[in-house]
Amino acid sequence: MTCDADFALRRRAACRGVFVTFEGGEGAGKSTHIAILADALRAAGFDVVCLREPGGTRIGESLRSVVLDPDNAEMADMCELFVYEAARAQLVGEKIAPALACGSVVLCDRFCDSTIAYQAYGRGLDEGAVRRANELACQGIAPDRTVVLEAPSAALGLARAARVAAADRLERAGETFHVRVNEAFRAIAAAEPDRVRAVVSHDSIEDTARGVFFAVEDLFEGLSLDVMLHAARALACEERRGC
Amino acid sequence: MTCDADFALRRRAACRGVFVTFEGGEGAGKSTHIAILADALRAAGFDVVCLREPGGTRIGESLRSVVLDPDNAEMADMCELFVYEAARAQLVGEKIAPALACGSVVLCDRFCDSTIAYQAYGRGLDEGAVRRANELACQGIAPDRTVVLEAPSAALGLARAARVAAADRLERAGETFHVRVNEAFRAIAAAEPDRVRAVVSHDSIEDTARGVFFAVEDLFEGLSLDVMLHAARALACEERRGC
Repeated sequence: MTCDADFALRRRAACRGVFVTFEGGEGAGKSTHIAILADALRAAGFDVVCLREPGGTRIGESLRSVVLDPDNAEMADMCELFVYEAARAQLVGEKIAPALACGSVVLCDRFCDSTIAYQAYGRGLDEGAVRRANELACQGIAPDRTVVLEAPSAALGLARAARVAAADRLERAGETFHVRVNEAFRAIAAAEPDRVRAVVSHDSIEDTARGVFFAVEDLFEGLSLDVMLHAARALACEERRGC
Repeated sequence: MTCDADFALRRRAACRGVFVTFEGGEGAGKSTHIAILADALRAAGFDVVCLREPGGTRIGESLRSVVLDPDNAEMADMCELFVYEAARAQLVGEKIAPALACGSVVLCDRFCDSTIAYQAYGRGLDEGAVRRANELACQGIAPDRTVVLEAPSAALGLARAARVAAADRLERAGETFHVRVNEAFRAIAAAEPDRVRAVVSHDSIEDTARGVFFAVEDLFEGLSLDVMLHAARALACEERRGC
């Protein structure tokens, strides 16, 4: 048994919930597919808590507004790392750990892998230092499964993100930066195949939802592919209507 | 030669300025004595940059407002640590390192020792973890001298601070917390006598300024005790007038 597997078992013994993180570059569709999976899990009787990073708490959202503000262009890379870790430490302590302890399913839009991808691969900070900072912030909490949604290319992902909202400070970091971020997610998925599953984010929300289903179905007894696809069709329909 | 001494020499070779930090519990008079020393150093021809932690930069001041806001009572200790480190990383990168590289004297109201005192001794976070976070934030910059201003007691210091402004989140942490913080500063001063000098903060600003002078005079050719005492008298006079 590897150290990682041993750690995961100890963590599960200490809490009864299931922790799934969604990762990926800009415009990969994380929030859409978290909403679809949450719907299907609730239909199967699970209590589901959806969170996002940075943010997810009142204090974390204050920190999010500092770190993503395009006016804060002078932010040092190491400062950026610490603000993400601060928001994470608050989210773990205030929301994730208590929800897992109550047996809930926690679905989180970004977690530690994003810090490896954006601050180590993207910004060029030392990966070992980033991992140590992640460990301090996570206080022993680790995802049971991570779904990496892969946009077909960094350029397409950024274009998709731009359709939804004005670019934040990270989205403005340039295409080369985002190519490195996508490379990082592929490396993370290759290094930890038990935890991390890569799912190609198709233009068809239904096809992507099918991929997400097969990436997590072993964790959730009673999760239905039909319900996932129904939720995906409903969301696609809403998006076409622009609501 | 110890590792620390070796490190200090390498750092000095890389920059020409002098870095002095002021530490101590609440109400010890740090900002007053930084102003007095800055006046005297300028009179002796030094270029002086005065900074404070958390803050000292536009981004750092945003983070300061989050970490000290009494409404953020639910802030996790680890989140608090990371916000301080984020503000520090920004201050080091944007202000301290460039000023030292230009040969300036940098006087900073709080630095890494405060994080050991407040987050390790005060909050009870692991001291090794706090030191590693400090190292990441400081990026090789370390004070040439640290003046620890000692209020006669934690209670008196808090009472002095309360006369100046409404209590922030840290000042509200309770007297036992602040007793541990003061113990930490004494331990730090005892452990590193070459770098750290403890100065008792008397009610007389002049007497305390004399102590500060003797704690730093070896670093600054031309620094005059008479000018320090003159600046102290002028400030004491202003304070009595309430301006």
